[in-house]
Amino acid sequence: MATHHFRPTHYHTAIGAHEPVLCIADGDTVITTTVDAGGRDASGEQVTPGGNPQTGPFYVEGAEPGDTLVVHFDRLYPNRDWGYTGTVVAANVVDPWFVPELPEGGRARWRIDREQGTATLVEPATKLGNLTIPLDPMLGCFGVAPPRGQTISTATSAEHGGNMDYRGFRQGVTVYLPVFVPGALLHVGDGHAVQGDGEIVGTGIETSFDVQFTVRLLKGKRIHWPRGEDDNYIFTVGNARPLDQAVQHATTEMLRWLQQDYGLDALGANILLGQCVEYDVGNVFDPAYTMVCKVHKRWLNL
Amino acid sequence: MATHHFRPTHYHTAIGAHEPVLCIADGDTVITTTVDAGGRDASGEQVTPGGNPQTGPFYVEGAEPGDTLVVHFDRLYPNRDWGYTGTVVAANVVDPWFVPELPEGGRARWRIDREQGTATLVEPATKLGNLTIPLDPMLGCFGVAPPRGQTISTATSAEHGGNMDYRGFRQGVTVYLPVFVPGALLHVGDGHAVQGDGEIVGTGIETSFDVQFTVRLLKGKRIHWPRGEDDNYIFTVGNARPLDQAVQHATTEMLRWLQQDYGLDALGANILLGQCVEYDVGNVFDPAYTMVCKVHKRWLNL
Amino acid sequence: MATHHFRPTHYHTAIGAHEPVLCIADGDTVITTTVDAGGRDASGEQVTPGGNPQTGPFYVEGAEPGDTLVVHFDRLYPNRDWGYTGTVVAANVVDPWFVPELPEGGRARWRIDREQGTATLVEPATKLGNLTIPLDPMLGCFGVAPPRGQTISTATSAEHGGNMDYRGFRQGVTVYLPVFVPGALLHVGDGHAVQGDGEIVGTGIETSFDVQFTVRLLKGKRIHWPRGEDDNYIFTVGNARPLDQAVQHATTEMLRWLQQDYGLDALGANILLGQCVEYDVGNVFDPAYTMVCKVHKRWLNL
Amino acid sequence: MATHHFRPTHYHTAIGAHEPVLCIADGDTVITTTVDAGGRDASGEQVTPGGNPQTGPFYVEGAEPGDTLVVHFDRLYPNRDWGYTGTVVAANVVDPWFVPELPEGGRARWRIDREQGTATLVEPATKLGNLTIPLDPMLGCFGVAPPRGQTISTATSAEHGGNMDYRGFRQGVTVYLPVFVPGALLHVGDGHAVQGDGEIVGTGIETSFDVQFTVRLLKGKRIHWPRGEDDNYIFTVGNARPLDQAVQHATTEMLRWLQQDYGLDALGANILLGQCVEYDVGNVFDPAYTMVCKVHKRWLNL
Repeated sequence: MATHHFRPTHYHTAIGAHEPVLCIADGDTVITTTVDAGGRDASGEQVTPGGNPQTGPFYVEGAEPGDTLVVHFDRLYPNRDWGYTGTVVAANVVDPWFVPELPEGGRARWRIDREQGTATLVEPATKLGNLTIPLDPMLGCFGVAPPRGQTISTATSAEHGGNMDYRGFRQGVTVYLPVFVPGALLHVGDGHAVQGDGEIVGTGIETSFDVQFTVRLLKGKRIHWPRGEDDNYIFTVGNARPLDQAVQHATTEMLRWLQQDYGLDALGANILLGQCVEYDVGNVFDPAYTMVCKVHKRWLNL
Repeated sequence: MATHHFRPTHYHTAIGAHEPVLCIADGDTVITTTVDAGGRDASGEQVTPGGNPQTGPFYVEGAEPGDTLVVHFDRLYPNRDWGYTGTVVAANVVDPWFVPELPEGGRARWRIDREQGTATLVEPATKLGNLTIPLDPMLGCFGVAPPRGQTISTATSAEHGGNMDYRGFRQGVTVYLPVFVPGALLHVGDGHAVQGDGEIVGTGIETSFDVQFTVRLLKGKRIHWPRGEDDNYIFTVGNARPLDQAVQHATTEMLRWLQQDYGLDALGANILLGQCVEYDVGNVFDPAYTMVCKVHKRWLNL
Repeated sequence: MATHHFRPTHYHTAIGAHEPVLCIADGDTVITTTVDAGGRDASGEQVTPGGNPQTGPFYVEGAEPGDTLVVHFDRLYPNRDWGYTGTVVAANVVDPWFVPELPEGGRARWRIDREQGTATLVEPATKLGNLTIPLDPMLGCFGVAPPRGQTISTATSAEHGGNMDYRGFRQGVTVYLPVFVPGALLHVGDGHAVQGDGEIVGTGIETSFDVQFTVRLLKGKRIHWPRGEDDNYIFTVGNARPLDQAVQHATTEMLRWLQQDYGLDALGANILLGQCVEYDVGNVFDPAYTMVCKVHKRWLNL
Repeated sequence: MATHHFRPTHYHTAIGAHEPVLCIADGDTVITTTVDAGGRDASGEQVTPGGNPQTGPFYVEGAEPGDTLVVHFDRLYPNRDWGYTGTVVAANVVDPWFVPELPEGGRARWRIDREQGTATLVEPATKLGNLTIPLDPMLGCFGVAPPRGQTISTATSAEHGGNMDYRGFRQGVTVYLPVFVPGALLHVGDGHAVQGDGEIVGTGIETSFDVQFTVRLLKGKRIHWPRGEDDNYIFTVGNARPLDQAVQHATTEMLRWLQQDYGLDALGANILLGQCVEYDVGNVFDPAYTMVCKVHKRWLNL
C-alpha cells in the first residue's frame, strides 16, 4: 500500500484510454494536484488549455472490465488563494422566453481563504458586496476510461463518470466506478472550492487543488453507474438528458444495490425507496445532466 | 381575523372554479380536515371517490387576479392511526428496459403513532420487517383555481399549484400562490404522514389530516409560480415535464423574486444562485413533475 | 341523419363540460363556422376574446364514457380573404443560447385567394417578397370534454384532443376521439389556411373557417388517444412533453390499434411498425407537444 | 478526381481519430463495402465484432477544422440477399406502463431481392405472412472524427454525425459534415435495406452494402450540425435527447443556413420556416435521438 507523489506534466480534456502517467496497486494512495477548469495551476500560470483538464490517467494494476474501482477522496482542497465563477445563469436553466438580463461570458473573481475556509466575492461589484461563503471543496469531473474504445469530452458525463459536478463528491467520500478497460485509467480534475446545486452558471468556484486519493479494487463486482458513500448515505449517480432519464438511471442502480449488497428483497427495496429516498441534483448545465439517488444508512442497519 | 371551523361534506378531484364552501377574509384562520388520497376519512370510512379529493374551495374576500394569496400552514397532522403506500417504484422512474420485479397496484399498510410521531410498516412482510420512520406530515396537493376557466385534475400540477408532492410543504411553511380568479378559491388535500422525494411509488403514507391554515392577501403582487418560505429558506416551485423544464420555471421565478423583493441587482442575483442555489425534487410520478429552487436566508440578510 | 346549420353566438377558450349549443344524433352533419385564433370572424370583426376560441360544444346523443366519437371533416375552408401568422420561431424551438434576432410578438399578414387556393405574404417586407404558397386548410384545435371534470385550455392538448396543430387534420380526414362525458361535447376551432410542421412560430395562417363535419358513434369502443384515418394512412396522436413522451403515447396506441382492429398478432404488429412506421410532428410550440404515428394502409390489406 | 476501390480489412465501432485506411483528395470517389450492424459481410461471414462497424476512416487531403466535408452518396445498395431486424418496439418508445408483450432480443429474417428491389419477411411466422416491402437503401451510421479528441460510440450520434438512422440518407443525397480534425476522417457503415422512421425496433433491415461516395471540400465553411440536400429538399440534422433538443439544434442550424446561403433576411427566414418547415424523425432508439428540419427547394428559388 504505497503512497505515490505524482506531479502532472500534461493533462487531458477528454477521458479515455490515454497513456497512463502512473501505475498503482490496489490499496495505494496518490498525492497529486489538479489545475483549474481553465488550465491554470497553483501559481495561476496557464499550463494547459482549458476545459476541465484532467490529471492522469492512473493505471490500477489488476483492474479489468467487469470490476469496480473504489476511490476514496482522502483530501480535496484548494492550493491557491483565488478562483473564478460564471456570472450568468445558463440559458438552458431559465425559461426560453426569459429575456436575458446580462451578457454571457462574464467572470467573477473570488478570494479563497484556506485558513478560514471561506470564499469571498471580490469582483464584479454587485449588491452582494463581498459575499463570503464557507468552502465546500469537491471534484467536478473525474472518471475512468469509458467502454467501447470511447474517449469522452470532460464537458459531459456518462456511465464512466466525467463532468458530473455533484457537490457530494467531497473529501471523505468513497466513490465506486465501473471498470471498462484494463487498469481502469482513473482521471481527476475540475476542483471547485464551492458550488451550488446544478452548476447553473456553468462553474463552481474554479480553482487548482491538492488531491489525495486511495484506490481499492472489487474484482468481479459489476456496477452500471457511479456510486458513492459517506458517513450518512449511500448514493447512485445517473448521467443523461433529460433529467428524467438521469432519475431513471440513478433509481434503477439504487434498486440493484439495495438488493445485491444490503440484503433487501425486491418488495422491501421498493417500499423503502418510496418513503425514504432522497434526490440531489448534480449539474443541469452540461450536455448530460446528473441526478443522485440517496438512501440514509440509518435505514440499512449499518 | 376570525377562526373558522369547517367540516367538509363533499370534495373535488379537480381544482377549478367550484362553488365555494366558505368565504373567509384576509387574516382568517381555517381549521378543517382532509380525507386521504383514496377518499377515506379519519374513521377510515370511504366518504368520496378517490384521487386526491380536495377540501374546499375557500373563497378569500377581496382576492382578484393579479394578487398573491399567502397561506400559512399552522398545523398539518394525521388524524387517524394508519396510512397506506404504493409498493413499486413507478415505471416512469426506472430505466425503460428494467424488468419489473413486482406487480403494480400493491398496497402497503403503515401504523401511525401520533404520540411518538412515527410510522411503522405493518404489511406486506419484507426484509424491512416493521420498519419505523419518523413522521414528517405534509400536503401533497393543494392550490387555487387556475387561469382561463380551467379545471385541472388533482393528479397533476401547474402554475396554480396542484399535485406537487413536495416534502417541504409541511407545517410552519408559508406558501404564496398566484390568484387567477376572484376569491382565489383555495383547495387543500392529499395529506402524507411521510413521503420520500419524488413520490416515486406514487404515494406518500396516505392518510386523513387535521389541517389548520391562515390566509393573507398581497394585493397587486403578481407572481408566476408557487413560492414558499420557512425559517431557513425561500423557495420557488416549477411544475412541468420534463424535469428540465420544471428547473427552468423554478429558477426563473427565483431570479425574479431575488430582484423584486430582496434588493439584488440582476448580476448579484445570478452570481448568488450560481454558488448558493439548492434544488429539491418534488414528485417525478405525475403528468407534471415538480422541482423546487431554494436559497438559504443567510445569504439574504434576513 | 339530419344536417344542422349552426351559427355560433359565443365561444370557449377551454374545452370542458360547457352547456351544449346543439344536440345532434349519430350520423348527423353540422355546418358551422369558426373564428380565427384571435377571435375574429369572417367579416374580420372581433366577436370574442382570442386564444383559439371554440365553436360548440355539440352534444352527441347516446355518447357515453367508454365510447368513441367519430368525426369526419367534410369541409374545412377559410371563409375570408386574409389571415395572419407569427414572425419569429419560438424560443423553445431554437437552441437556448441562440441569440434572438427578432422581437417577439410580430405579425405577418397574408392574403388568401380562395379561388386559386393560395396564400400570399402581404407584409412585412422581407426577402421573401410576396411569397405565395398553396392552401392546405386544417383545424389546429378541436376535441371533446376531458375526463375527471376537467376543463383544459385551448392552448394545450391531452387525451381529449385540444390544440394539436397537426397538418393532417384536414378536409376528408376521419378523426376518432375517446368519449369521457355523456354527449362527448365536441368543440371545433382554430382554422389554419396553411401551417408548417410544428407550428413553430406559434401560428399557422390563422383565419376564420367554414366547417362541416359528420359524427358517428362507436358504442363500447374504448380508445386512449385521438386517432385518425385518410385515404392512405391510419394514424394515432400522442400529446405530451417532452416529444419523447408524445412518441410513446402515439406508438403504444398504434400497437393497440393494429392488434385490435387490423388482425395482427403482437409480433406482427411490432415487426411491421419497425420497418413501416412513419412519424409526423404536430405542434412543438404549446405546453404539450404532439407526435403522430402513421401506418400506410397498403400494409394493412385495406 | 480519382476513383479508389477500397476493400476494408478492419472496422471501428467508435468514430474518432483512428489511423486512416486511405488518403483521398477533394473530388475523389471511393467504391467500397460495409458490413452489417452485426459485423457480417456480403458472404454472411462474421468478419468483425458487431455494433455498427465502420469502414474507414478516409483521410481527405486538405481538410482542416472549420471546413465542411461534402459527401455525395453515389450508390448505396445491399450486396447480399438477406438481412435481419429486431422484432420488438423498444421499451423507450412505448409508454412506461405498457406491459411488454414480447421478449426482447428476437430477430426477424428478411430475404432481399436486389433485382426486384424488395425485402420479404421470411421468419418468424406472424399474421404478416411474407410481407414484402420495397427497398429504400440508406446508411444508418456515418460521420467524421468528433472534436476535442473524442472517440464516440457508433451506438450514438452528435455534431459529427454517427448513428442517426435517418431514412433520408439514401443514394443521391449530398451530405455536409463539419470538419473537426485534419483530414476529416470519414467513417461509413450500418446499411439498412429499408427502415421505418425512428428505427423503433432498434434496427432497419440490417445488411452489408456496396457503397460509392464522392467527396468535396468547402474550405473555411463552418457548419454546426450535419446538413443534407436532395433534388427536392435541403435539410439539417440535430442529434440529442430529448427529441425537443434535437428539434432545437436542427431548427437553429436551418435558420443559419437560410440566411447564410439562401439570401434570406432573419425575418424572412423565420416567416418561411413558420409556414413551410417540415420535420422528419431519425432514430428515437439510441442514446441521442435525431430530428431533421427540412425546407422544400421550391421556396428557395433553386
